[in-house]
Amino acid sequence: MTENTTGVTAAAGFRAAATTAGIKPSGNPDLALVVNEGPEFTAAAVFTRNQVFAAPVKYTRGNNDGTFHAVILNSGNANACNGVQGEKDAEATAAAVGEALGIPATEVAVCSTGLIGDTLPMDKLLAGVATVTDEVQQVAASSPEAGLAAATAIMTTDTVAKQAVYHGEGWTLGGMAKGVGMMAPSLATMLVVLTTDARIDDPAPYLKASAEVSFDCIDIDGSTSTNDTVILMANGASGISPCDEELAAAVNAVCMDLAKQLQADAEGVTKRVAITVTGTETDADAKVAARILGRDSLFKCAMFGSDPNWGRTLAAVGMAPVTMVADRISVSFNGQPVCVNATGAPGARDVDLSGEDIDVLVDLGTGGPGTATVWTTDLSHDYVHINSAYSS
Amino acid sequence: MTENTTGVTAAAGFRAAATTAGIKPSGNPDLALVVNEGPEFTAAAVFTRNQVFAAPVKYTRGNNDGTFHAVILNSGNANACNGVQGEKDAEATAAAVGEALGIPATEVAVCSTGLIGDTLPMDKLLAGVATVTDEVQQVAASSPEAGLAAATAIMTTDTVAKQAVYHGEGWTLGGMAKGVGMMAPSLATMLVVLTTDARIDDPAPYLKASAEVSFDCIDIDGSTSTNDTVILMANGASGISPCDEELAAAVNAVCMDLAKQLQADAEGVTKRVAITVTGTETDADAKVAARILGRDSLFKCAMFGSDPNWGRTLAAVGMAPVTMVADRISVSFNGQPVCVNATGAPGARDVDLSGEDIDVLVDLGTGGPGTATVWTTDLSHDYVHINSAYSS
Repeated sequence: MTENTTGVTAAAGFRAAATTAGIKPSGNPDLALVVNEGPEFTAAAVFTRNQVFAAPVKYTRGNNDGTFHAVILNSGNANACNGVQGEKDAEATAAAVGEALGIPATEVAVCSTGLIGDTLPMDKLLAGVATVTDEVQQVAASSPEAGLAAATAIMTTDTVAKQAVYHGEGWTLGGMAKGVGMMAPSLATMLVVLTTDARIDDPAPYLKASAEVSFDCIDIDGSTSTNDTVILMANGASGISPCDEELAAAVNAVCMDLAKQLQADAEGVTKRVAITVTGTETDADAKVAARILGRDSLFKCAMFGSDPNWGRTLAAVGMAPVTMVADRISVSFNGQPVCVNATGAPGARDVDLSGEDIDVLVDLGTGGPGTATVWTTDLSHDYVHINSAYSS
Repeated sequence: MTENTTGVTAAAGFRAAATTAGIKPSGNPDLALVVNEGPEFTAAAVFTRNQVFAAPVKYTRGNNDGTFHAVILNSGNANACNGVQGEKDAEATAAAVGEALGIPATEVAVCSTGLIGDTLPMDKLLAGVATVTDEVQQVAASSPEAGLAAATAIMTTDTVAKQAVYHGEGWTLGGMAKGVGMMAPSLATMLVVLTTDARIDDPAPYLKASAEVSFDCIDIDGSTSTNDTVILMANGASGISPCDEELAAAVNAVCMDLAKQLQADAEGVTKRVAITVTGTETDADAKVAARILGRDSLFKCAMFGSDPNWGRTLAAVGMAPVTMVADRISVSFNGQPVCVNATGAPGARDVDLSGEDIDVLVDLGTGGPGTATVWTTDLSHDYVHINSAYSS
């Protein structure tokens, strides 16, 4: 159902543009704009749950009343922890976009990603806004090149642009995402923009439900960003109103696809690890336990070393504040039982984990129906190198 | 007040012995025994809060009724997650020690540390028990060599033996400890044995209070072991009953000294990081926030890189489930303010963190009296190497 051909401009009536404003020292593109041509402008957004949140999150959350016409996104600077100046800068960015496009500033969502604690170079950023607002009015709607350019301009230490698309019967839903570190979203994640030409009166329930089973199940490093934002815009340009089930499936498919792309490009990743916990009283319990295992440095180092270390697995889940039956815990790696009823299974130390994908299944032994999957990565030398060698 | 000359045998009336039973593949010493000669045998112990706990923890906790005569400790094998066989092996170990020393098995505390999930080589272990029980009856009480031998025999990836001592007026309290990884104790830690010739009717309150402000404030890697045990034995051999304040100070001093030694020898450590959080409503809130920062991989990588990255600091503490005033958070590194009221201070990126010790002070801005310090380390290449290159 999902093809990665185009992203945020795949749906009818969405334009995008990108430029190099000069915010990144690298000289790579760092400013992107996505504009909804209508006829409808329904939108939904979810944000970081971090108590320390960035100025663009404050601005966009404050204007999140069910409609957005455009999203402006910069990389290279998070505009977080910049006090009143940061808030003024986010407002000025939205105002400049709004003025150029002839829409209220409150209809412009603002997203930023990059280093925390440096104020935005507003001269460069506003010159960039002039460029992208001009360009977006000249580019064709649904341009794949423009969608890719936008997805590229929001990258920081991402190594690939992340796009996904779902084609319904006569309608489309597409999106783009960025995010490689500080990645343990809490019902929101990183920067994600989804667009659809379907008619959706209220996209919020679909976005919330999908975010919970996709982005919220990624836990790369236990760190939740100050800037996480996911926005879905719907314009009804296809004239089609998909049924509830299809809409949910479409939003799920694109969110899941983007989430898997984020996991695969996480900082320093050498292994993609899917942790499924079962046998808890509730799904929420299972997610808590899976997340605790996904954050455990010793477990993650073992994954890096292709070491089927079920002892560290049990020690980690044993600290989860959920009901379990400790002497009935069982663990499988890649489908092979390594621990049954909290004791080692024959051959447990010889399971082959040398591949890039590792499936971990942990049953906490209560006999309850709870289950959840969290996607994480290993803890590698490159992760340490990337995150110690320079500020980011 | 604290000298590291001798440890667990510093107090009058305590003997120790150690041997190489052959549990460790390395051929290093791996079995230690500490025996209290009396006349009194009061004792206290605290244990891991992990729901997955080892057989020796189950055995020792089950017999933790206020007295112990001896502690037998092996390294090289945690005897964790070995089911009923593990429980039988812990019982058999205590029984063998008890028989040789002429004391009930229930008066023998059992501690194990090492790899999780392999059953103990009981033939080797019981032969080792015969050796150490024989030796301990020939060695002099208060032998510094015997104390060091015991502290050495409980090491796993520890690079140095950890001992501490407090000399009161006519009485002494000493101890030994081991622990380098899987180190985020919860009111208990690793393996620690404290001995004193003071008269203490009920050592439990002193041990609990000290553990809470010492071992429980270490958080190296967020992982809580299945085997953490701290035991304090008092024999009254000095005939002295120190006052409440001095006893508390002595237990505190030795626990704190050992805790700092554990931090300094943590796996892969290149920086010792003390995180103090203030300005919370309660001390408990401050500890929660300090612990969350101490577990944050991005923050720890920044410390490894000597990077005064206060942005990651704010992002990490912002996820603490405690009351804070986000725009009044302030941060200092090594006494230099780098962030004031959630915005960068002049020169913040230039603070020198190249030394081995880094002090981090975070004020969460509520104006409340809460404060706590947690000791952690950086996240280094060596940490990843040590924990991925082989099972441990």
